[in-house]
Amino acid sequence: MKMNIKSNSTLFKSTILLVLLILFCPTGHAQTTLISEMDQLKWEKVMPGIWKASVGSMGLNPMDYANSPKTDAINELGDAPFPFAQEASRSLLTSNRASVRLPLDESEQIYGLGLEFEGINRRSEVYSLKVDHYGDIKGQTHAPVPFYISNKGYGVLINSAQRVKIHVGVSNRKDSNLPERIDRTTGKNWAARPLSDAVEASVEGGGMEIFVFSGETTLEIVQRYNLFFGGGIIPPKWGLGFWHRMHTQSRDKDILKEIEDFEANNFPLDVIGLEPGWQSFAYPCSFDWDKTRFPDPKNFVQTLDKKGIKVNLWENPYVAPVSTMYNDISPYTGSHTVWLGEVPDYTIPEAQKVLLNHHQKHHLDIGVSGYKFDEVDGYDVWLWPDHATFPSGNDAVEIRQLYGMMMMDMFDRHFKEQNQRTYNLIRSAYIGASNHNFVLYSDYYDHKGYVTALANSSLSGLLWTPEIRSADSAEEWIRRFQSVSFSPLMMLNAWYSSKKPWSFPEVTDMVRNTIELRMKLLPYLYTAFYEYNQKGIPPFRAMVLETGYDSQEKLEGSELDDAKNPYAEQKRLEVTDQYMMGPSILVAPVFTGQKERKVVLPIGNWFNFYNGEYAGNGETITIKTKLEEIPLFVKDGGIIPMLTTVDKNDSDQTLEVRHYGTKENTYLLYNDDGISYDYERDKYSLTELKSSKNTKGELTGSFNSLKENNYSYSNIVWRWMTMQH
Amino acid sequence: MKMNIKSNSTLFKSTILLVLLILFCPTGHAQTTLISEMDQLKWEKVMPGIWKASVGSMGLNPMDYANSPKTDAINELGDAPFPFAQEASRSLLTSNRASVRLPLDESEQIYGLGLEFEGINRRSEVYSLKVDHYGDIKGQTHAPVPFYISNKGYGVLINSAQRVKIHVGVSNRKDSNLPERIDRTTGKNWAARPLSDAVEASVEGGGMEIFVFSGETTLEIVQRYNLFFGGGIIPPKWGLGFWHRMHTQSRDKDILKEIEDFEANNFPLDVIGLEPGWQSFAYPCSFDWDKTRFPDPKNFVQTLDKKGIKVNLWENPYVAPVSTMYNDISPYTGSHTVWLGEVPDYTIPEAQKVLLNHHQKHHLDIGVSGYKFDEVDGYDVWLWPDHATFPSGNDAVEIRQLYGMMMMDMFDRHFKEQNQRTYNLIRSAYIGASNHNFVLYSDYYDHKGYVTALANSSLSGLLWTPEIRSADSAEEWIRRFQSVSFSPLMMLNAWYSSKKPWSFPEVTDMVRNTIELRMKLLPYLYTAFYEYNQKGIPPFRAMVLETGYDSQEKLEGSELDDAKNPYAEQKRLEVTDQYMMGPSILVAPVFTGQKERKVVLPIGNWFNFYNGEYAGNGETITIKTKLEEIPLFVKDGGIIPMLTTVDKNDSDQTLEVRHYGTKENTYLLYNDDGISYDYERDKYSLTELKSSKNTKGELTGSFNSLKENNYSYSNIVWRWMTMQH
Repeated sequence: MKMNIKSNSTLFKSTILLVLLILFCPTGHAQTTLISEMDQLKWEKVMPGIWKASVGSMGLNPMDYANSPKTDAINELGDAPFPFAQEASRSLLTSNRASVRLPLDESEQIYGLGLEFEGINRRSEVYSLKVDHYGDIKGQTHAPVPFYISNKGYGVLINSAQRVKIHVGVSNRKDSNLPERIDRTTGKNWAARPLSDAVEASVEGGGMEIFVFSGETTLEIVQRYNLFFGGGIIPPKWGLGFWHRMHTQSRDKDILKEIEDFEANNFPLDVIGLEPGWQSFAYPCSFDWDKTRFPDPKNFVQTLDKKGIKVNLWENPYVAPVSTMYNDISPYTGSHTVWLGEVPDYTIPEAQKVLLNHHQKHHLDIGVSGYKFDEVDGYDVWLWPDHATFPSGNDAVEIRQLYGMMMMDMFDRHFKEQNQRTYNLIRSAYIGASNHNFVLYSDYYDHKGYVTALANSSLSGLLWTPEIRSADSAEEWIRRFQSVSFSPLMMLNAWYSSKKPWSFPEVTDMVRNTIELRMKLLPYLYTAFYEYNQKGIPPFRAMVLETGYDSQEKLEGSELDDAKNPYAEQKRLEVTDQYMMGPSILVAPVFTGQKERKVVLPIGNWFNFYNGEYAGNGETITIKTKLEEIPLFVKDGGIIPMLTTVDKNDSDQTLEVRHYGTKENTYLLYNDDGISYDYERDKYSLTELKSSKNTKGELTGSFNSLKENNYSYSNIVWRWMTMQH
Repeated sequence: MKMNIKSNSTLFKSTILLVLLILFCPTGHAQTTLISEMDQLKWEKVMPGIWKASVGSMGLNPMDYANSPKTDAINELGDAPFPFAQEASRSLLTSNRASVRLPLDESEQIYGLGLEFEGINRRSEVYSLKVDHYGDIKGQTHAPVPFYISNKGYGVLINSAQRVKIHVGVSNRKDSNLPERIDRTTGKNWAARPLSDAVEASVEGGGMEIFVFSGETTLEIVQRYNLFFGGGIIPPKWGLGFWHRMHTQSRDKDILKEIEDFEANNFPLDVIGLEPGWQSFAYPCSFDWDKTRFPDPKNFVQTLDKKGIKVNLWENPYVAPVSTMYNDISPYTGSHTVWLGEVPDYTIPEAQKVLLNHHQKHHLDIGVSGYKFDEVDGYDVWLWPDHATFPSGNDAVEIRQLYGMMMMDMFDRHFKEQNQRTYNLIRSAYIGASNHNFVLYSDYYDHKGYVTALANSSLSGLLWTPEIRSADSAEEWIRRFQSVSFSPLMMLNAWYSSKKPWSFPEVTDMVRNTIELRMKLLPYLYTAFYEYNQKGIPPFRAMVLETGYDSQEKLEGSELDDAKNPYAEQKRLEVTDQYMMGPSILVAPVFTGQKERKVVLPIGNWFNFYNGEYAGNGETITIKTKLEEIPLFVKDGGIIPMLTTVDKNDSDQTLEVRHYGTKENTYLLYNDDGISYDYERDKYSLTELKSSKNTKGELTGSFNSLKENNYSYSNIVWRWMTMQH
């Protein structure tokens, strides 16, 4: 055996000092109050309530693919003191790794870290944040965002394009405040994961940046984070309608026939999605129309457009040699192929130009509304290896981590240059995605996990659709339709099974009703997106962002089982199956087989959406489920503007303004043209809807146009859901 | 968006050249025959049939914790030409990663990569080789050995203490020989994992070494690999007997009572294992005897020793402050704790000295025979983080990857210095483990996976025990006992459930019979270990190491399912449930519920072990199972020496030499004192057992002592299992 000491490392020298220190410490204990080998982070205030510190130097900067801060809105949120002990925040840079250590107290709860399908509280776990297909590895997901939120009033973003490995309250330094040691043989409550007093995060390579976002509430932290990246998006109105994806082998006439079927069955249809087969070659892709199936793409797209139906095209980024853009883009592709297609290096502007020019000419110029960018993530067996090389010289790992962001960023800018709003699908995202017009999806298909993901997405600047692919029963069919109707993007993606919304006749009316309910809620939902844009408030939100919510979390003391649980690991029981939509609706989806379910109501009176009846206050209620209804609860004073038809573009129709409970309230209703960025140039309407009590104590409603234009609703009828008038 | 080009990188310059090259290539195609950006590896012959190439420079060298080559035995295997096209072996060193690319042809099968619980053929998969608790991530296992074997006559070892990421025939470079592209929409046989013409492997950091081992057969490759690290071990004879682990709270008198129960039930007992509670504190550990439960450890250990029972002590490496060795070792521990215990840095010789001195004084001096080193692996939530620091300055990732090897290496050397053989358990291993006296185990508990692991372990220089913890039925109990009886270490580890071998009365006799059969096979098994030691032939071997074996592997063309298999990934069907023990026995374990099973017999006549009947030749047979028998088949001419008592140390007892089939054969029977390293100083016996045909064509047996000493068997009776005499 050789002695393996790197004698010339400065780390070694400083450790020798530490060792000497310990040797001469009379107790013989390694307990020191200072983490002496680590440097204290130097925090610099970048905006009110936002600080930054740097460790070493980075490769690609993820923030180059996110938008700029919404400065005014951040200023409006106001300032705050630095949220934790600065001297406890530390960093260490070694030859191949950079790490930080941030304090954590015993009762602190941690949320976020991107699109996870399980759990909300991220404490006592290690996440290896890697853009990948979903899997059993914590942190390996489509959108593993290195941003976490503490319920103690702050959030932390690790800005790095490397895979961030983050230890959330596990891994105890010997010089930290260690909990009491317990002899496992005789003691009780020995823990396989002893509590630690820190979050520790590390990346391979030369460094990272750390941002801290303060907030009086968890919601305010999320708002600051979203606003730092430009706030949320406002989708075009058609994007909030009904999406339907066609079979990959569909021809133009099959699609026209399908549209007739939708009309005949009286189902709304806003977007038709074309799967790989619209192309002359796919997997890898040509990005060119297949002239057999689509002899006249322009006429086809415009025919649909006239019917009010947008076309969305599936693509993955991997270029087939038969593509008409192959010769132009091949010089900018990496060393390795994916499905035998070349991988463009979109850190190079020329590569972006080739793609955008091709897409403008062949798709956007004829009216295509947007894309579904598939497989910008993927398992290691599909994508390029970590050791691949790219012509820019950028690191393959970093390019993989940011690929989805690059796609979003370049197309968003391109659409915006045309003053055209868009709404798209993508399978990966990363830091600062809130201002990108893209919704995440997955091949993962567990309905309960879908709902958990919907909640988690709001904690990381993401939007998520629990799209429908198939169902084993009519019950599952309607249950999934109910969930997707209360999500950012209502899509049927059953092209493979060729199922239609009416494929389970016994629930067809229920499916139509839930879709129509979503359509009628457009003014409420659209305004929620406006709040996302202006204030960074996610339109669909995890319950932990709601004031007065008690997460009811419990650690189940698991029993030791020598074959199944030899470390007696505890199980975290938490509520992940309900979320908020807009300011006042609590959504509690039902899963197949559930005859009843529990709903945790935050503090305050809550009312049944359908009949206005009182439901509870700061308590867990058990409700009997109905097949035809997704349970919805409305906050006291909740004002919900609803269309009375499914025509989302008609602002002359009667607007039904529902009021729930007994509280007075004010609601600011937003509207605009629904398709362009003109709202950024002051072209939108704002209407104040106000419920107030008259001298008899009876509620009355009024409305007041604060900012008028063509899009103002003027035909407003109040409906008092709880009180009789 | 910023332009992110690392303009000062030399990589970028060379890539620009490549880009220009491609631009001026008339076809516009990136197809080049040379992988121009990669350097050709320079191979240097290090021994006959073994070559080495280097890329950059490494951190810790795994080979420092393995033993030296058995030069004579390697020379005896002879020389061979370099086994593949040297110019196709390439490397690339970037700022943070080193990679190699080695050729692979279309039909090549790849085996190895350490202790895996699924499959044998490793092709079309990516493995991230990380020492860890078992999991769903390919390559994350207790012993992820970066050594693979090709059925085309060579093996490749990536020598690195970093986590090797290895793409086995997936990930196609654009400048390689790409298979035909298939349009997924209209074509057939589109593959989610297109065949690639290479194995590509990479590590973080500055470099790696690559070793190539040639071999005319896959077995010869394994032999060269094992011999390169000193060959295999010969366990002490007691190590091949019956092991039983006690409840962690057992007191000395409980154990003496348990031993009486073994005697009363007429079960052999060779080793008693003590779990954490033998210590005054555990998890983290004191490594000191608990004086309440063991008031007189010396007397206790020696009482057992007089009964012929060895004592094995459980430990994990994490030091509690109450340990009497704490003050001495604490200066050499890393920054982070594991279960609140400190982590010694055993790359520092002083740290090794503290541990060994303490263990010699408190355990070995009083007669303890060895250890079970637990949790030298572990999940990220338990162990130290990648960014931990150690006083030697060595990398935390590398120390974690090698921790088990360090423990084995230092204790092996220590035991050898005392001229005492030992046999131990450990939960992790890495490169070159064959000459360490340790057997792997796991908390993983699937019986079928256990058998697959037994086969795979032989491909990577590992030994594995499918220890028994519990069973849901008497059937499972006997089935697991049968498997463990035909493994390197026969252990009941049911301390938690307090089950005894006789806990299922309906199978108690069967359990006793299978244990006794294993005991009687001692001469055969011991000689197989001698072959392991001398020639590197694993005593338990995967079928792919057997000449004339057809793996019957099939790729099942899986159907696309949009919810469950959206990429129509194929499934590899292979036989993983049978293996060889010694030169001539094929073991085909039965799992709970199996009323019959298939057995793939290699080419040659095979015979039923129990009755000598002909079973088949180069074919797949289906056998009806019997609860009382583990199916065993013997090669034509197989000579199997068996004891006639269970006293493994009595060489005066009658030795029954079984012969199967009709072939003449010669078998070299080995024996020695069973406890010391004197066999390395020429103190052992070799007896030639020969079956030959007389003039009538009848088989007759003879024996001839080639090397005589006290351990020669002289009382030999031949038993002709197939032919009548």
